Amino acid sequence: MLGVALLGSGRMAHVYGPKINAHPGLRLVTVFNPNLASAENAAALYGGTASADLDVVLGDPSVDAVVIASPTNTHVEYVEAFAKSGKPIYCEKPLDQTLERVDRALACLRAHPVPFMLGFNRRFDPDNAALQRAVRAGEIGSVNMLMSWSREPAPPPIDYVRASGGYFLDATIHDIDLLCWIAGERPVEVFATGSCVFDPEIGAEGDVDLTMTVLKMPSGALVHVNNSRACAYGFDQRLEAFGTKGMLQTENHRDDNLVRWDGQKTVARETLKHFFLERYDASFYHALDEFQAAIQEGRPPSVTEEDGRTALAIALACDRSRREGVAVEPEY
Amino acid sequence: MLGVALLGSGRMAHVYGPKINAHPGLRLVTVFNPNLASAENAAALYGGTASADLDVVLGDPSVDAVVIASPTNTHVEYVEAFAKSGKPIYCEKPLDQTLERVDRALACLRAHPVPFMLGFNRRFDPDNAALQRAVRAGEIGSVNMLMSWSREPAPPPIDYVRASGGYFLDATIHDIDLLCWIAGERPVEVFATGSCVFDPEIGAEGDVDLTMTVLKMPSGALVHVNNSRACAYGFDQRLEAFGTKGMLQTENHRDDNLVRWDGQKTVARETLKHFFLERYDASFYHALDEFQAAIQEGRPPSVTEEDGRTALAIALACDRSRREGVAVEPEY
Amino acid sequence: MLGVALLGSGRMAHVYGPKINAHPGLRLVTVFNPNLASAENAAALYGGTASADLDVVLGDPSVDAVVIASPTNTHVEYVEAFAKSGKPIYCEKPLDQTLERVDRALACLRAHPVPFMLGFNRRFDPDNAALQRAVRAGEIGSVNMLMSWSREPAPPPIDYVRASGGYFLDATIHDIDLLCWIAGERPVEVFATGSCVFDPEIGAEGDVDLTMTVLKMPSGALVHVNNSRACAYGFDQRLEAFGTKGMLQTENHRDDNLVRWDGQKTVARETLKHFFLERYDASFYHALDEFQAAIQEGRPPSVTEEDGRTALAIALACDRSRREGVAVEPEY
Amino acid sequence: MLGVALLGSGRMAHVYGPKINAHPGLRLVTVFNPNLASAENAAALYGGTASADLDVVLGDPSVDAVVIASPTNTHVEYVEAFAKSGKPIYCEKPLDQTLERVDRALACLRAHPVPFMLGFNRRFDPDNAALQRAVRAGEIGSVNMLMSWSREPAPPPIDYVRASGGYFLDATIHDIDLLCWIAGERPVEVFATGSCVFDPEIGAEGDVDLTMTVLKMPSGALVHVNNSRACAYGFDQRLEAFGTKGMLQTENHRDDNLVRWDGQKTVARETLKHFFLERYDASFYHALDEFQAAIQEGRPPSVTEEDGRTALAIALACDRSRREGVAVEPEY
Repeated sequence: MLGVALLGSGRMAHVYGPKINAHPGLRLVTVFNPNLASAENAAALYGGTASADLDVVLGDPSVDAVVIASPTNTHVEYVEAFAKSGKPIYCEKPLDQTLERVDRALACLRAHPVPFMLGFNRRFDPDNAALQRAVRAGEIGSVNMLMSWSREPAPPPIDYVRASGGYFLDATIHDIDLLCWIAGERPVEVFATGSCVFDPEIGAEGDVDLTMTVLKMPSGALVHVNNSRACAYGFDQRLEAFGTKGMLQTENHRDDNLVRWDGQKTVARETLKHFFLERYDASFYHALDEFQAAIQEGRPPSVTEEDGRTALAIALACDRSRREGVAVEPEY
Repeated sequence: MLGVALLGSGRMAHVYGPKINAHPGLRLVTVFNPNLASAENAAALYGGTASADLDVVLGDPSVDAVVIASPTNTHVEYVEAFAKSGKPIYCEKPLDQTLERVDRALACLRAHPVPFMLGFNRRFDPDNAALQRAVRAGEIGSVNMLMSWSREPAPPPIDYVRASGGYFLDATIHDIDLLCWIAGERPVEVFATGSCVFDPEIGAEGDVDLTMTVLKMPSGALVHVNNSRACAYGFDQRLEAFGTKGMLQTENHRDDNLVRWDGQKTVARETLKHFFLERYDASFYHALDEFQAAIQEGRPPSVTEEDGRTALAIALACDRSRREGVAVEPEY
Repeated sequence: MLGVALLGSGRMAHVYGPKINAHPGLRLVTVFNPNLASAENAAALYGGTASADLDVVLGDPSVDAVVIASPTNTHVEYVEAFAKSGKPIYCEKPLDQTLERVDRALACLRAHPVPFMLGFNRRFDPDNAALQRAVRAGEIGSVNMLMSWSREPAPPPIDYVRASGGYFLDATIHDIDLLCWIAGERPVEVFATGSCVFDPEIGAEGDVDLTMTVLKMPSGALVHVNNSRACAYGFDQRLEAFGTKGMLQTENHRDDNLVRWDGQKTVARETLKHFFLERYDASFYHALDEFQAAIQEGRPPSVTEEDGRTALAIALACDRSRREGVAVEPEY
Repeated sequence: MLGVALLGSGRMAHVYGPKINAHPGLRLVTVFNPNLASAENAAALYGGTASADLDVVLGDPSVDAVVIASPTNTHVEYVEAFAKSGKPIYCEKPLDQTLERVDRALACLRAHPVPFMLGFNRRFDPDNAALQRAVRAGEIGSVNMLMSWSREPAPPPIDYVRASGGYFLDATIHDIDLLCWIAGERPVEVFATGSCVFDPEIGAEGDVDLTMTVLKMPSGALVHVNNSRACAYGFDQRLEAFGTKGMLQTENHRDDNLVRWDGQKTVARETLKHFFLERYDASFYHALDEFQAAIQEGRPPSVTEEDGRTALAIALACDRSRREGVAVEPEY
């Protein structure tokens, strides 16, 4: 049973809190937030003590591992602190929005090698994972095309957009990580384009709310991602893998599985899961499970800090491609 | 090129007229109806002469074959006349509503053996035919269950119901013929039950508008048919065959194949084909094609007068079972 | 937090043990089995003490409720004992295989009214429950037909069959309970037929391994159930509800949701959930949750002992109808 | 009844011949090929005379219209000849592989305005047409994304590739025309990339056999096309239209519609239609029907020579983008 410190008590902390609780190998020891009242609120819900003093958490012998679910701009600092204290780290993605600070974290992790896992939770969605296993097992032969759809139900508040690092760093980075993981390679060239069609405020920030991205892989495989900040029919999340021997697709998840025939349009299905908290709920649990199992088994977790750097480098190249209208080679 | 006489100029004649025209091996020579004006109307649409004198048609050397699409109570008389004149006969189902008159026709056909085909058109629907071929080819091993759904969009006029011979003879007989043909055997026992839930006038006639039928086959296979005189979502026509090695299903046909995702219920499909004229349009052509090919190739057509007698005997047993509340052995 | 005694430590006890453990409002206090070693084995896995002395369990003040998962022929005796001791009872279905003994249990429960719930777990499957809610909410208007498919992957051992009370009491009873619950009424007449096509030993016992059942409801609605003791493609579990305004279907569950296109048959899907433990796993948890919630809220659980008697009376009528070849009116 | 001259007697002529024959408003008068034997062969199959002398065809008063199905490099010459002779022209796509020669044809058609239709047959596929109608009717609100899949079963012979003008001009041009027609606008920028993964001979010609293309529309809508010269599961042809109110998809067509459940992977479907002749068979008939109807009704056909020029300009921009690795603005 690993004692866990949870850093942060905002939205993502409320995702991880119940999963830490439900996991038979994890126990929530303490919730940290510089704002003590917020930490106390989360601790009251999920158990453990509350703390506003990081040094206390770092020095607490009952803390065996840390789950970082605080704002992005604090991730590198917390990773450094816990790496130096020798504690295993699970860090919500991204490590940071800049390669410079990510590289600082990577250097620290090389100097202080602790088990580290980045929270690319969508790899742990059962359908995505089944598709990746089937591809890696050669079920469709050599992979020639990969495609990902990620369309969100409604644009986020403009303050969220401002702090997000732009649409590619905020959202496309998930698709990029998934597709590189499935492909088993990373692109030599990216091209991305975008529009602002839903919320003019997003455009006024120089950002876009509708994108298409093309990645070219060393093997010749071609990759397509499309992202939209709005989607009338819910959270549309699909993958397609096309290979020399066949094709694989994942389907959207629905609130129920009834098939409905009525007097107008026949064979209607239930609405889609609303957004990522509903659609990927199980994946957060499975991600923590991988973290716990890796520590238990003395092996590195399957999503590394290098995976985070790679996805960031590609997302930054997409962003530059979109702004400059040229194909861009990512800086790995 | 076979010259064809079309008997009748009502609804079914307007189904067959255009198909005779479109078939490269058939030519419409004449349309017969005791009501000459009606015959002339059909002939104007589909070609050929019009006639109200059956003897003229029987004696016309350019008539190589006859398609009987007149009212049911005239079928036996016309079959006898054309059998005696030695002309191949295609007869819309049923031969008659009584076993006595059907047996009279069978006796005449034994005495005057001409190519004869009964118009169980649903066997010639491409999906039904593909299912039958797959079953007979052993794709699902031994057949253990067969199921048929036949739900009509709306109840027919009460005059139609009165002349129909009851729901089992009018409609279930189609499912019975299909399922016995697929099974390759005929039932040793039938049980049927029904209700009147849509149109009280149907109940007042002693008939039902909702039925379930169970057939037990000599092999032990069990068969289910359900029929409904109303269906909010169109003409629901499905088959299911369950065997020792697997299962086969046919799907309903739609007006288009678009998949529609909107803001409410996602993945809606187009409405179903409205009724039998739309759903089984192609099957009437394929049935005539079998008739023409059999004559051309000098072999008996694949749907025989005996098939018609068998289906009628089973439908009559269903009707008796429903009225008496007991399982009934059909009289073959 | 309710302290729970688990009676029995066989197959069904191993289904309930982990669910009691996982439920935040239930705590496993003791496992009872006259065979102490077997009770100890289950207690070692799921917690609590082991006991072979029923009086100790009945007198244990930390036991707030009992979950009866012992062999069917012990159910009535245990129900009586715990009713008299005033403890809430969850009893795996069926209460018993005879109406006489069921009536004995019902009389005792009337004399000693404790919260009682019968374990018709399939009502608590999320898809079945969604269909029932949609029907009861009038989404398809008046119900005219209900259909249930229940095909098991492979025949059970012959010893299981011998003790099962016959196929209708063992399996069809589940479909009967579901469909009466969805319909909101119980049949006035049943007809059932069956064959033995898979395992001749089952036939030698006078039982069948393939059945079709028809129920006629007071409203005129017609109900179809088909059951098979073998199914090449897994555990086939489907419902269909046909009403005046539309139709609802539930779909089978699969081991994953990938859509697979290969070089032969395109659009293949994953295999079905293997059998009831896999397919209905969640439903056992949801059933216990209803039991706990009803006790907590001081209301009767939603599946009553009367529901159990009704389903048994119908299953017995099916069995008689199959043996005698006549339609039978159930004895409620 | 329009008398039709069919130019060419190769593969595409054998597509159009039977459709001209089957159309009630068209009659095949003559088949032209400089190789008389080839023309005679086609005329023997589909009717009409054979001719190797174009002037005879041009001067034949029974020729009311021409269907050009000869090799691409003859299209402009034949268009000019028939425009000058005042005869309505149906020309198989493309008009030509160069903008220069297309502009020569357009100038001639402006000087000699005859009814002209370009054979973008895929617009006349019933599913594609239903999607376009739904989009133009506003069913999904404003269009934000359009996607097209076109994956061919196997690479063509290398001689075909050499004469094809490259993959974008040969194949992507179909998707481009469809998507611009659905969108109701044409791109301001295109980006295309490609690989050679199936046939190294194609790569040796400087061509590719796997492509992804992105078009950016003036409205901000983004368009994706993927093309593959090989596809293990048949001819994969799909469209997706994503708008502010919903989404529309077309599905692949299969050789039959049975749903097959077997002991391994459940719910298999039949193989896809093999290639464009099978998949789009009906569309060629519907295209000729539009040509005939437009002439009959005295209105211009719905696919114009300008549509052909637009699609060619975009395909050429794709080709340049792929070669140079930059986004390109098409030259309209």
